[in-house]
Amino acid sequence: MEIKNKLCLVVLVFSVLLAVSSGVDYKEKDPELRQCQHQCQHLRGADEQQKQICEQRCDDYIKQKKQEEKQRRGEGGGTSFYGYDEDQEQYQGQQRQQQQYDQNPYFFEDQDFETIVETDQGRVQILQKFTEKSDLLRGIQNFRIGSLITNPHSFVAPHHLDADCVCFVFQGRPTISMVRGEKRESHNLERGDILRVPAGTPVYIINRDENEKLFIVKLLRPVSLPDQFEAFFGGGGENPESIFRAFSPEVLQAAFKAGRDELQRLFGQQRQGSIMKASREQIQKMSHSSGGAEKIWPFHGDEPFSTSTKSGPFNLFKKRPSQSNQHGHLFEADFNDYKQLEELDIQISFANITRGSMVAPHFNSKSTKISFVLDGEGFFEMACPHLASQESSQRQQQPQRRSSSPSYQNVRGDLRRGTVFIVPAGHPVTAIASRNSNLQILCFEVNAKDNVKIPLTGKSNVVSQFEREAKELAFGVPVKEVDRIFNKQQDQFFFEGPNNQQQGRMWSVV
Amino acid sequence: MEIKNKLCLVVLVFSVLLAVSSGVDYKEKDPELRQCQHQCQHLRGADEQQKQICEQRCDDYIKQKKQEEKQRRGEGGGTSFYGYDEDQEQYQGQQRQQQQYDQNPYFFEDQDFETIVETDQGRVQILQKFTEKSDLLRGIQNFRIGSLITNPHSFVAPHHLDADCVCFVFQGRPTISMVRGEKRESHNLERGDILRVPAGTPVYIINRDENEKLFIVKLLRPVSLPDQFEAFFGGGGENPESIFRAFSPEVLQAAFKAGRDELQRLFGQQRQGSIMKASREQIQKMSHSSGGAEKIWPFHGDEPFSTSTKSGPFNLFKKRPSQSNQHGHLFEADFNDYKQLEELDIQISFANITRGSMVAPHFNSKSTKISFVLDGEGFFEMACPHLASQESSQRQQQPQRRSSSPSYQNVRGDLRRGTVFIVPAGHPVTAIASRNSNLQILCFEVNAKDNVKIPLTGKSNVVSQFEREAKELAFGVPVKEVDRIFNKQQDQFFFEGPNNQQQGRMWSVV
Amino acid sequence: MEIKNKLCLVVLVFSVLLAVSSGVDYKEKDPELRQCQHQCQHLRGADEQQKQICEQRCDDYIKQKKQEEKQRRGEGGGTSFYGYDEDQEQYQGQQRQQQQYDQNPYFFEDQDFETIVETDQGRVQILQKFTEKSDLLRGIQNFRIGSLITNPHSFVAPHHLDADCVCFVFQGRPTISMVRGEKRESHNLERGDILRVPAGTPVYIINRDENEKLFIVKLLRPVSLPDQFEAFFGGGGENPESIFRAFSPEVLQAAFKAGRDELQRLFGQQRQGSIMKASREQIQKMSHSSGGAEKIWPFHGDEPFSTSTKSGPFNLFKKRPSQSNQHGHLFEADFNDYKQLEELDIQISFANITRGSMVAPHFNSKSTKISFVLDGEGFFEMACPHLASQESSQRQQQPQRRSSSPSYQNVRGDLRRGTVFIVPAGHPVTAIASRNSNLQILCFEVNAKDNVKIPLTGKSNVVSQFEREAKELAFGVPVKEVDRIFNKQQDQFFFEGPNNQQQGRMWSVV
Repeated sequence: MEIKNKLCLVVLVFSVLLAVSSGVDYKEKDPELRQCQHQCQHLRGADEQQKQICEQRCDDYIKQKKQEEKQRRGEGGGTSFYGYDEDQEQYQGQQRQQQQYDQNPYFFEDQDFETIVETDQGRVQILQKFTEKSDLLRGIQNFRIGSLITNPHSFVAPHHLDADCVCFVFQGRPTISMVRGEKRESHNLERGDILRVPAGTPVYIINRDENEKLFIVKLLRPVSLPDQFEAFFGGGGENPESIFRAFSPEVLQAAFKAGRDELQRLFGQQRQGSIMKASREQIQKMSHSSGGAEKIWPFHGDEPFSTSTKSGPFNLFKKRPSQSNQHGHLFEADFNDYKQLEELDIQISFANITRGSMVAPHFNSKSTKISFVLDGEGFFEMACPHLASQESSQRQQQPQRRSSSPSYQNVRGDLRRGTVFIVPAGHPVTAIASRNSNLQILCFEVNAKDNVKIPLTGKSNVVSQFEREAKELAFGVPVKEVDRIFNKQQDQFFFEGPNNQQQGRMWSVV
Repeated sequence: MEIKNKLCLVVLVFSVLLAVSSGVDYKEKDPELRQCQHQCQHLRGADEQQKQICEQRCDDYIKQKKQEEKQRRGEGGGTSFYGYDEDQEQYQGQQRQQQQYDQNPYFFEDQDFETIVETDQGRVQILQKFTEKSDLLRGIQNFRIGSLITNPHSFVAPHHLDADCVCFVFQGRPTISMVRGEKRESHNLERGDILRVPAGTPVYIINRDENEKLFIVKLLRPVSLPDQFEAFFGGGGENPESIFRAFSPEVLQAAFKAGRDELQRLFGQQRQGSIMKASREQIQKMSHSSGGAEKIWPFHGDEPFSTSTKSGPFNLFKKRPSQSNQHGHLFEADFNDYKQLEELDIQISFANITRGSMVAPHFNSKSTKISFVLDGEGFFEMACPHLASQESSQRQQQPQRRSSSPSYQNVRGDLRRGTVFIVPAGHPVTAIASRNSNLQILCFEVNAKDNVKIPLTGKSNVVSQFEREAKELAFGVPVKEVDRIFNKQQDQFFFEGPNNQQQGRMWSVV
Repeated sequence: MEIKNKLCLVVLVFSVLLAVSSGVDYKEKDPELRQCQHQCQHLRGADEQQKQICEQRCDDYIKQKKQEEKQRRGEGGGTSFYGYDEDQEQYQGQQRQQQQYDQNPYFFEDQDFETIVETDQGRVQILQKFTEKSDLLRGIQNFRIGSLITNPHSFVAPHHLDADCVCFVFQGRPTISMVRGEKRESHNLERGDILRVPAGTPVYIINRDENEKLFIVKLLRPVSLPDQFEAFFGGGGENPESIFRAFSPEVLQAAFKAGRDELQRLFGQQRQGSIMKASREQIQKMSHSSGGAEKIWPFHGDEPFSTSTKSGPFNLFKKRPSQSNQHGHLFEADFNDYKQLEELDIQISFANITRGSMVAPHFNSKSTKISFVLDGEGFFEMACPHLASQESSQRQQQPQRRSSSPSYQNVRGDLRRGTVFIVPAGHPVTAIASRNSNLQILCFEVNAKDNVKIPLTGKSNVVSQFEREAKELAFGVPVKEVDRIFNKQQDQFFFEGPNNQQQGRMWSVV
């Protein structure tokens, strides 16, 4: 009798789960969870524990489904290309390619960003946690990436983050004001400027440009949680809520020695949100403010601008490119250029790939690259052993493939403004610009100390450094043949792109 | 037939689970698990795998219940206060307040400590792992906090920990003896002394005070597991067991070149446990021991006391307070004061808040503060965006709240001797002493390098550093009004507390 | 009707699971998973979500079973020894001993290694992730250990790892060539040489010895994932696949400025795998190569060999042993000896324990020791509080044991070539060589900065440093007795081993 009764409960628990799952509408997620858990609460004869088990099951189920949904969303336009040598199955061709689009954990698009602040004057978008996408990204889980876009003549209200932040200005002319100790530092920035805002620094930002939108890319390293940070707004208002309003009224009154009514007035008036319109006059005053403890870098002649000791910005484009030819330019800033990067152990680079050109296949010896596409179109290809081994463990039907031998999957993604791709240390990668426009990519290279970029082809490719016997053994062909082919490409780092790109993506037509 | 048979098993597995869960007694936990798993072992017709699945289910279930029980235990005396402006719902009032007591992950009380050593002469208590309380504390998961309390004239037996340890003496007069290399260092400590005991250092402690108990607060950073450490007792005895007794007798005999009987005598006699009574004579000898390689700091004239290079202690109260007025005093020790703190990247501070006074609402730019209340009563309030966002995700019924805008929850806890609260980097916080007694708080500030304390109100508050246009935009009121209110409170860091505290917790009466 | 239908599905899901689990063959694992998931895909009436739930259950189940299987495999030859004092239950004897063999998380044997590369000329083996064995090893989860064994006159094809690697040469005479920047460095190594290969460095290796196999032990620290690394082969061939072959043909053609056919020829010829036979002539040329940017250390007179600034090797055996007597020798290399170890924060030591002798019971104050047995036979014993507490929590039947007092389990393992054991910081340990042969152990000490080895017995044992009163209190016997026993063993670090070892493992006979 007791057992029979319990059995009914089990059945009911599952029934709830399945009943909900079968009537699923993919557009509404949380309502579904609510409905499932609601049904748990009304399970006849179930006690509290059983209801909780039921609710947990709802939760697990919804999580699983969301995951699945995400993967489905990522499927998008899977393209394929004809295999390198179909008969010999040297490239696994379509099948493999398809798979990589389904589950490319190194590539992020619009839907992977979360909008954490949005007003009619601008918005802040943050990419999802890397480890939410894939466990293969846990090596960079302490970093987040995002962007700030605001209108001309706008103002981002004072706030601080519990994260170190490195900003790169791609568009617009921001003035960033930080309160450090008992003084304020204001920096008039321009395109190409890099500025670090240390964790916890109160900061506000204007876009002093009258016509152009502000577009800043941000790399963030949270300081109190490994992969999560929050913005704390220190002005007035309810939306965003002022941090002052979290304290109880008695405490606030004592802290300010002020009356309840005046505090209510002070914190209750600001209703425009955290990114708002500023008047031309206000912008002008904040662009040229001076006097007192304030400092405007880099215009004060008496305090010379020095990137190594000051908290001021560094302009990436004023440095000579480290690689440059008609196919592209690479600008790099390391610890020596901008001391502030050392504590975060990052390097910043900017690649401008001429349309129709490509970056040499290469790898980074130590750093993992977080790449944010700023402009243009194209695609990247990367050789990844992790995915290949996952895949091969799923292909048990092919026992001839020895498990004791690494193989690499071609990981690929179509690049356009706002897409992000990750290149882990050691992974060979290339990026190709479309025929239509230059491809401009900003890279944050994490774990930068002692990193070396190692080119696989072109002038100074790594194979040229092997001894002749090593070349012969490694390739199984006469050394002359190895040298002949590796010496053909005489450009360095940037090359002319694949020829057939002239006809568009010819290789996607099977 | 086969299928039907299996179905029965499934039903049985669940029946066991539910049968146990329905007859639950919350007082006995482990017996319940035992019972559940016992029933699994006797499932008719189930094979080993099925039994194991069944047992795993038992385990999951019990874990879930314990978690639930813990939350229930934490409910305690939830108080509420009248909202700041009930009509406009500016403070969410009671409902929110209630919730925060239910699930305040930043606040720890007596029941959150585990007693790891206890004799009639004293005890060692360690706070549970921070991540057991909440995932929001994983940023400090590599640290543990605890206390040592012993009687007058007591002796803590020789041991070492697989953790770095920083001790703060709040009461009693300990002599701490450490063996380092081939010599021993003995330090006569007093109230306010900070001493680091490096991981693995053999150490023993006496309380040389004849009347006062010893009370030491300890911050620990495990070296071999991130959040777990153990004590290794190197004397004799069974309780605690001597580390020598874990070796097999043959090995011990060879290691000592000694006979079985004499080893048995040596390790078998000590029966008083690890904290024991010492005679006045023993205490005196150990307080004034000298000669040979021994050193008693800071009394040896020939080896001058230097905090930066020696392993000796630093007295926090002999330094000038960094903040001081009639409302309180703040003592701080950083790397410059005590070099030993640098490797742990911590700073130690001690706040003595005058009764009826409060600390300015402020935040730390980088460090997370682990605060241990040493004496007095009061409460703390903190603005927390993490809880607020959790909460709002649960309140799907209020779609008018835009998800793209941060809000902050008031996190609060009643403070008394032995309570612990955590203040993550960036989170605005204040603490208020009751009218009855000074509130004395010891803080370990983790991640201390380049940290800055940033006051939100009072003299040198952060808002005063904003430009006038930024003030107007941030608050939406004329700059004169902003300045007038922010200039009212002219004290720095310690203020007169909320007035209505004179009548007790008036604001808790709805 | 709907509910009934769903119920059927639940039943089916479980039926699949149980049907598979009951017909299990322990030899084939993945096929079983495949079968289980296949059945899920053909569940009648189930929609996609239900099938996925079903598959997930298969997955969980198989994982659980593998775990279980692994534990079973580890049971092996549990030995026991007679208790120290059975009547008084001072050593818990057989029962405890048995348990420790069942679940010793600190000991690894052949089956715990994975062969990641294997050809007829050699193989690379890597120990499983430490955390796969036990959560107690998560403190060293960022390290991996493995070995390379190749034939005389063999060649390991050019590759790079996404891991820092420290090599120790125990046998054979390798020449290791690394490409760094635009030059190559070749190092002719011998027995005892330590060489660090930084992450991402292209490297190839020959064994220039004509008769002896090459045996290198490697410590690896992955740079892009905490506990996982991959080899990237940069030559030709399919097995291992060349990294070049992961790129699409169009991209490769552009990168090389070469035709499809010639690329296919270049990358398609090498068919011998990544470890291959080299001719005597090839070996000779690569052992004595010179000219151009190449450098052979340590033979170039014009560039003096300096271990602190160069990337060259350090020979452990050319340093004076730090401990040495007729019972054994200890060689140690720290940051001062080999600068390259500093970044990894490791120290390397080599203990050669004379047959019939033993290492003093001792512990490391800070570092965790990863020990690889290179030759000989013997066993180790370690005192472990973690296992003891796990055990005691399982022995709820013995309530007389106070939970508030640490106890230690004897952890033990039989050592022979290729076994690995881990000694966490603070844990007392000893190792004993058999009567038949010297026991040679290589240790990587992780977290080495400021580490101290602390001996528990023998000359300069830690107890001798205690004050006389502390000795009396700690042991509960007159100080004379303590001193008498601790002074008997006058050897330092290496002692004569247990006497009864002459009769073989006498203590294993109950």
